[in-house]
Amino acid sequence: MAPYRYNFFLVTFPKPFIAVVEINRPARLNAFLRAMWLELKEVFESLSYDPDVRVVILIAAGERAFSVGLDVQAAESEGGILHKEVDGDVARKAVGIRKTVREIQGCLNAIENCQKPVICVLHGISYGFAVDIAVCCDIRLCSADVKFSVKEVDIGLAADLGSLNRLPKIVGDFGWVKDVCMTARTFGAEEALQVGFARSVKETKSEAISESYRMARYISCKSPVAVQGTKALLNYSRDHHLADSLEYTGVWNSAAVQTSDVSKALLSGIQKRTPTFEKL
Amino acid sequence: MAPYRYNFFLVTFPKPFIAVVEINRPARLNAFLRAMWLELKEVFESLSYDPDVRVVILIAAGERAFSVGLDVQAAESEGGILHKEVDGDVARKAVGIRKTVREIQGCLNAIENCQKPVICVLHGISYGFAVDIAVCCDIRLCSADVKFSVKEVDIGLAADLGSLNRLPKIVGDFGWVKDVCMTARTFGAEEALQVGFARSVKETKSEAISESYRMARYISCKSPVAVQGTKALLNYSRDHHLADSLEYTGVWNSAAVQTSDVSKALLSGIQKRTPTFEKL
Amino acid sequence: MAPYRYNFFLVTFPKPFIAVVEINRPARLNAFLRAMWLELKEVFESLSYDPDVRVVILIAAGERAFSVGLDVQAAESEGGILHKEVDGDVARKAVGIRKTVREIQGCLNAIENCQKPVICVLHGISYGFAVDIAVCCDIRLCSADVKFSVKEVDIGLAADLGSLNRLPKIVGDFGWVKDVCMTARTFGAEEALQVGFARSVKETKSEAISESYRMARYISCKSPVAVQGTKALLNYSRDHHLADSLEYTGVWNSAAVQTSDVSKALLSGIQKRTPTFEKL
Amino acid sequence: MAPYRYNFFLVTFPKPFIAVVEINRPARLNAFLRAMWLELKEVFESLSYDPDVRVVILIAAGERAFSVGLDVQAAESEGGILHKEVDGDVARKAVGIRKTVREIQGCLNAIENCQKPVICVLHGISYGFAVDIAVCCDIRLCSADVKFSVKEVDIGLAADLGSLNRLPKIVGDFGWVKDVCMTARTFGAEEALQVGFARSVKETKSEAISESYRMARYISCKSPVAVQGTKALLNYSRDHHLADSLEYTGVWNSAAVQTSDVSKALLSGIQKRTPTFEKL
Amino acid sequence: MAPYRYNFFLVTFPKPFIAVVEINRPARLNAFLRAMWLELKEVFESLSYDPDVRVVILIAAGERAFSVGLDVQAAESEGGILHKEVDGDVARKAVGIRKTVREIQGCLNAIENCQKPVICVLHGISYGFAVDIAVCCDIRLCSADVKFSVKEVDIGLAADLGSLNRLPKIVGDFGWVKDVCMTARTFGAEEALQVGFARSVKETKSEAISESYRMARYISCKSPVAVQGTKALLNYSRDHHLADSLEYTGVWNSAAVQTSDVSKALLSGIQKRTPTFEKL
Amino acid sequence: MAPYRYNFFLVTFPKPFIAVVEINRPARLNAFLRAMWLELKEVFESLSYDPDVRVVILIAAGERAFSVGLDVQAAESEGGILHKEVDGDVARKAVGIRKTVREIQGCLNAIENCQKPVICVLHGISYGFAVDIAVCCDIRLCSADVKFSVKEVDIGLAADLGSLNRLPKIVGDFGWVKDVCMTARTFGAEEALQVGFARSVKETKSEAISESYRMARYISCKSPVAVQGTKALLNYSRDHHLADSLEYTGVWNSAAVQTSDVSKALLSGIQKRTPTFEKL
Repeated sequence: MAPYRYNFFLVTFPKPFIAVVEINRPARLNAFLRAMWLELKEVFESLSYDPDVRVVILIAAGERAFSVGLDVQAAESEGGILHKEVDGDVARKAVGIRKTVREIQGCLNAIENCQKPVICVLHGISYGFAVDIAVCCDIRLCSADVKFSVKEVDIGLAADLGSLNRLPKIVGDFGWVKDVCMTARTFGAEEALQVGFARSVKETKSEAISESYRMARYISCKSPVAVQGTKALLNYSRDHHLADSLEYTGVWNSAAVQTSDVSKALLSGIQKRTPTFEKL
Repeated sequence: MAPYRYNFFLVTFPKPFIAVVEINRPARLNAFLRAMWLELKEVFESLSYDPDVRVVILIAAGERAFSVGLDVQAAESEGGILHKEVDGDVARKAVGIRKTVREIQGCLNAIENCQKPVICVLHGISYGFAVDIAVCCDIRLCSADVKFSVKEVDIGLAADLGSLNRLPKIVGDFGWVKDVCMTARTFGAEEALQVGFARSVKETKSEAISESYRMARYISCKSPVAVQGTKALLNYSRDHHLADSLEYTGVWNSAAVQTSDVSKALLSGIQKRTPTFEKL
Repeated sequence: MAPYRYNFFLVTFPKPFIAVVEINRPARLNAFLRAMWLELKEVFESLSYDPDVRVVILIAAGERAFSVGLDVQAAESEGGILHKEVDGDVARKAVGIRKTVREIQGCLNAIENCQKPVICVLHGISYGFAVDIAVCCDIRLCSADVKFSVKEVDIGLAADLGSLNRLPKIVGDFGWVKDVCMTARTFGAEEALQVGFARSVKETKSEAISESYRMARYISCKSPVAVQGTKALLNYSRDHHLADSLEYTGVWNSAAVQTSDVSKALLSGIQKRTPTFEKL
Repeated sequence: MAPYRYNFFLVTFPKPFIAVVEINRPARLNAFLRAMWLELKEVFESLSYDPDVRVVILIAAGERAFSVGLDVQAAESEGGILHKEVDGDVARKAVGIRKTVREIQGCLNAIENCQKPVICVLHGISYGFAVDIAVCCDIRLCSADVKFSVKEVDIGLAADLGSLNRLPKIVGDFGWVKDVCMTARTFGAEEALQVGFARSVKETKSEAISESYRMARYISCKSPVAVQGTKALLNYSRDHHLADSLEYTGVWNSAAVQTSDVSKALLSGIQKRTPTFEKL
Repeated sequence: MAPYRYNFFLVTFPKPFIAVVEINRPARLNAFLRAMWLELKEVFESLSYDPDVRVVILIAAGERAFSVGLDVQAAESEGGILHKEVDGDVARKAVGIRKTVREIQGCLNAIENCQKPVICVLHGISYGFAVDIAVCCDIRLCSADVKFSVKEVDIGLAADLGSLNRLPKIVGDFGWVKDVCMTARTFGAEEALQVGFARSVKETKSEAISESYRMARYISCKSPVAVQGTKALLNYSRDHHLADSLEYTGVWNSAAVQTSDVSKALLSGIQKRTPTFEKL
Repeated sequence: MAPYRYNFFLVTFPKPFIAVVEINRPARLNAFLRAMWLELKEVFESLSYDPDVRVVILIAAGERAFSVGLDVQAAESEGGILHKEVDGDVARKAVGIRKTVREIQGCLNAIENCQKPVICVLHGISYGFAVDIAVCCDIRLCSADVKFSVKEVDIGLAADLGSLNRLPKIVGDFGWVKDVCMTARTFGAEEALQVGFARSVKETKSEAISESYRMARYISCKSPVAVQGTKALLNYSRDHHLADSLEYTGVWNSAAVQTSDVSKALLSGIQKRTPTFEKL
């Protein structure tokens, strides 16, 4: 499969059904520009419906940083994010801010809404926007040198791109969430592992990427109907009370269970061989 | 107290106020048939209102498995669960599937809705339906040999009987939940303990059961008004936002606090003796 | 800054922007009377809007106990809480109970609703009401000698002042929550740390207080717009599903981002010096 | 088709795909006993999955009353509903009351959850439980002599079987709902029509029943996949915010749209003839 | 009973169990000052728990206006509401605005949260804050000369004191709600009656007040346990989905049904006499 | 202002701040193609942020129909909507259906999410998709010849593009909603007016359009901060319970109230002249 072509992302297909998305602005430590988050959305919307993809791995180019966060300087010259010192009516500026925030939130949602599991491999500096991205992914792996920070407080802001909204739903220890979000202090791989923010830690970036390949290959052999349904239903459960979520699950599976993947999987189980599933 | 009589469950009362429910189809590794989940519901609905019961322990017969999950083969011959390859209109089959899923979900809900605390002791193979059962219980103990798997992905399905809905609400580490649910990989006692899926691990099944007896005896001496209220309110809190849950709690206790258990408990506290509470 | 004057609380300002609230009835092991929870509300409502305060530390006087809980004896003579054995119409008593419960819940809510972060330092006996207080705080530290208990079951009650409602939202391990709430058993510092109920443990009370000062000083240097927004948004996120919480965040920041703190913070970052923010 | 046999209900099938359920205790003005609501549940659960039924009409025998409500006298001798003057612990009685209320609510839910549309024809005295029943139906018709009352306040109770919960969701005028629920005053056909509680009024009971037949025949010719889906989705929409309800609708139709009813309906449209749909 | 004494409200008790609250600043057409909404809260919190009160009627002094709304001029000199042209940091002003809005909303909530039914009689000019008050009441009556307007748009504001939040929940016609809220146009008694905003219209203010007395007397003879429960449950139902609201109702009545009012009401029914209920 | 150019919509600006969107495929009775709903989204997203627009009027070209609904024939040849008789795995087709439904729902959401009020003028045949569009608008006007139908049941479908989700939220009479949705029967202007689906009826299409101009001009003179805030807050209130909606309103206005429109409006009021507001 030919790689997709983007300006700020390298999308490759190193193994069947596995896409690797690489954030690719290493010269600026993968700081995010507006063009990048718009492109990020495009990337994940394409992968979401690409039948040749069953798992997505998200990594970042360069050794020093997964991402230092938003490119604040550039963002300002684009007049976009902070609406800092512009004159003008407060209410009218508020409309502009809401529009910008919603745009970026929408781009990040594309990761969470991607129907395929997304495994993120973090390394080096992973600040601000890097955390906003990480919390949209299904599983987070990291290298020992990773340095996380929910950085926004340090620039006078409450984080508004998702970290404050998603962190409490992926880490059970709410006191820890408050600590790192209110202090903007950095934390490393071990702490991330211990509170459950990271699923595992490897010595180096490349080992962590290898681990992500291993997980991705494992998942890519399963029925895509089953895997994608599982992702969708887990995200739904996170946001709904039990009765709603049980009911939704039944409705979801009323179509999904009619797939031929079930008989293929059962038969393969009996025959002790690996099943082959149609694309999805 | 005489044991209840069921075909697939042995219900005994080894100690005052403690019921032990044993899943009892060891020859088939406690694989579940339709008759079994219907009976499971009956068992827990009876115990829920049995005034001689204050705590329920749920265990499974045999050494090798708590349960291997649904008896897929039997289920299929009953035509019930998977609606695999039957001809017919997709929408009409969907109605049938929803009906079946709702039936089984309803049977499992009987465990969660049982007014008395339910302690589950898991051992050996505990796959698929075993996990669906375990997540309905209040506290999970296990033996060192336990092998868990949210197995459904391996048969081409997103789990629809409760694991995907309840796991994110009992384990705080959402990345781990996604990992085990999307990969269907097995995990053992230590991992279960570490993420908080299991409350404690004992070397053997019988030691784990002893531990469950110890906890059950401890709870059975408390006011049943207080214990059952606590269970109900914790489950309510899990599913509601804070303001609603505080309000519900006040309404609940507007009746419960009028119990004579309070003065009995206070008086016993002063007199340094164990209080005796009326049945509930 | 002059200390506030209260009957049961000592409020001091040892460092710029840091308030320390000390529960101050050590002779009775800080058992709570009605006058105390009413005053507690006053204290936190004042601090919430006091522009000279950016962080609040909550501690308790005496060596033996943070608090033994409600002063049940006094409460009864006030006729307030338990409505124990009074004659009278059940429904009418229920109205009185709801009123009392709502009053106390409302007083405790003042801690959670305080716009400034609240760090609680627990030591010694910390039973019942002490836990109700602790779960309202943003971060919990403790000394090695702390002894917690969700004590209410022991006096014949399901806890109705917030522990059952907030604990499941600050500790991810729901089985553990059920265990400690249904058994009323005590647990210590290490267990609290391990499940994430406590953020850190220090050998002594005074070391734990020092740690709280360290955190408070760290936070007090940040933009108060950013810190207070972060607290508000994290609490909102805990109680709402993702889409709602993202939207609310955007609306919140449409005003907050227009603060001059952002440019101050950015400029200070460039100039490598500590920014000074206006009061809030 | 042979009528179903019940003690208190007459279920007949006067036209293809139309079931008529008649409450049948006219000698006691159709006052409800426990045996009756249990049977009511059975009736509607059977009809819900009976492939020969597409619409249900609910009427009541006798000229004077659809129903005078619960048979309070009998209920008391059964010891069931009001738990009036029994001695005993308040909290333990509360458990019993909750159990009874939940049982009756569950029986009434069977009407709302019946997958087929239910048209109710009300006449004469329609008090208390009669309104609880009526609000579970999809469409309410009535004769000119109907006399409604949300009667519970007159016996010292807030209605707890559904009227207070469902009325505000089927009538938009909340002031009117409060008026009739808080005063327990009677209201007639014209008022019912004007506020939208009744869909239409006919001079006599038999004319109203004829009208219900007309509507039922009309609906029974439509695709049952479409009609039952519409009922399910409208009830879901009533209880959920817009985004959730749009999403649920898409998931529901992902199976339903695959029905062959669509091509049959389209083809029949082109050929100007009445389509015939498979049973459901 | 002696009237309560307030500066801006006259509270009298013309009939047993009926309180009449009169807004009393006719010289300024009952325009609201800060002191008034604070007092309004006090009035309704007192009445809520006053055992001699079972129904509250809310009227306004003078012939020309129920209320012209907030006293904007005075409010500005108090520096409170609009925070118009003050210099200062946008984010810090936002905190002040939120505080003010929450304060006023809280005062108005006291009407809705008053446990006794509140009947409002509107006449003459009823703009802005008058509508905010009216939507908090359970039932709205008016005289033919009433002139309503959701006036806020005319002063450059989206109404933030409750009209936008409560109107869609008391009037079913959402297009009408949008029309009157977005245009700020006035509408009269007939239109109010037709859409269900008003329950009835009388020719004059005094006739409308007479009508409110008639309703109040009728309600005041009913069991206060039943009436107050009905109000509470209807408001709960408005804000919750069906399953939650049914469950809450059962829990509520588990205490309320144990009242002796039930037997009194039943007995009186049999004996054809008016029951007398204990105070609440 | 120059009209926008689209293939299927004519967008003109006949008066200051008023945009008129005309559905423009009269030769096919404005039946909707995929290209049309994609364009519809574009149109409304542009208008939403066009500072020269304050109100949008939505009309349709031709005399006979506002719209006959989806162009089913074309849709099928595009392979898009019904996924009728295609072979293939049921679960995989379900994914495709969900994708299509979500796409169309998203396009329609653009009308509701347009920040400016949208007034819809309906005439002639207004079936299926026409109703899906109408329920997204804020206010519906119509001519006497209008013929509505929630048509989907007639082609074997439960409507999945919004009618079932939004109708119960804009019309209070739920029995009527069920009637028209389950029968797919047509209804006319008078019935639409009476239940509140239409705000007003005029004899002819052009008179109805004149009426929409009148309303639009009226609204376009108001502060756009106030009007757009009102729309946003009313839609929010519809979907949230009261406490949430009050809180959101306060946060929203913490920025909006800082607008200079307030002082302009107040000053103009005093000076008896029409204020001029900045664009938004």
